[in-house]
Amino acid sequence: MNTPKNHAVILLEKEYEDLEFWYPLLRMRETGIEAQVTAPVSGKIYHSKHGYPVISDSTPADINPADIGLLIIPGGHAPEHMVRHPDMVQLVRNVHMSGGLIAFICHGGLLACSADILNGRRATSTPAIRDEMEKAGTDWHDEPVVVDDRLISSRCPDDLPAFCRAIFEETGHRFTTLV
Amino acid sequence: MNTPKNHAVILLEKEYEDLEFWYPLLRMRETGIEAQVTAPVSGKIYHSKHGYPVISDSTPADINPADIGLLIIPGGHAPEHMVRHPDMVQLVRNVHMSGGLIAFICHGGLLACSADILNGRRATSTPAIRDEMEKAGTDWHDEPVVVDDRLISSRCPDDLPAFCRAIFEETGHRFTTLV
Repeated sequence: MNTPKNHAVILLEKEYEDLEFWYPLLRMRETGIEAQVTAPVSGKIYHSKHGYPVISDSTPADINPADIGLLIIPGGHAPEHMVRHPDMVQLVRNVHMSGGLIAFICHGGLLACSADILNGRRATSTPAIRDEMEKAGTDWHDEPVVVDDRLISSRCPDDLPAFCRAIFEETGHRFTTLV
Repeated sequence: MNTPKNHAVILLEKEYEDLEFWYPLLRMRETGIEAQVTAPVSGKIYHSKHGYPVISDSTPADINPADIGLLIIPGGHAPEHMVRHPDMVQLVRNVHMSGGLIAFICHGGLLACSADILNGRRATSTPAIRDEMEKAGTDWHDEPVVVDDRLISSRCPDDLPAFCRAIFEETGHRFTTLV
């Protein structure tokens, strides 16, 4: 737990929710955090639900979970594609188990369910996946942002300001040396 | 100049650049600033270049320029539509003349040109409109962000982190009472 967790990751797959990917990524850059954009394939263009393109720069194999202080999972249809890749699921689990903060929004909770990190924990998501969240053991709350130790979750794009406010309050002490 | 300039405005028209509208708007909300979304028609849905919808909540007639501490002009094709509305052009000019900060990015400079607020001032824009900017008297620079007193400008979506960093440094002392 003494590893300096100075790196951040944002996960990517096709049909991601435009703002739920871009707002946190640009917000990290504004703060000086250069997050890895990690997807099943590196160097590939993925398009949002509305067709906005972004290029991945890494795969889970490129990431050392112990280095990661913050991992963000956007929503849209992307999480449904992510859960089909065991290495994407395992990355979330390994970052969480080694002390990193996991932040997910909207359908992003699906990947947190598959990573089996929600049992007994407080969290939220889009109401559309509340059943899946509760079956995974989540103490589910209908709030703009729920913070439970190293889990931060929100419901929808309208919650992004509260989501990022919570993320940067929680990570403020982690990213003392920026990547 | 003693008016408390506690209000913010972000301008809207069809075919706005997705991130250049949404990143500053969400970033203001994260800070606690509730900006008016001002367009030629209020209560109308406008779509981004990629089809992302947003509803306007005001027209220039609803805005008192003396109250506005910050006015943001996103890019995309939206500024080409904005300049056809004299009340949109006049709003930019009036906010500037009454001491408000004008922030524009990419093609947003076209509206600043039409508002005739650039003569002799340092600014940047997408290189595509450099000629128009220089004909309007701009001392044009190819930099991620250019700050000249109450004008803040950037070139493209990649500059958004620097753009917003500059905006919130400049406005930090203005928005003492948040709207």
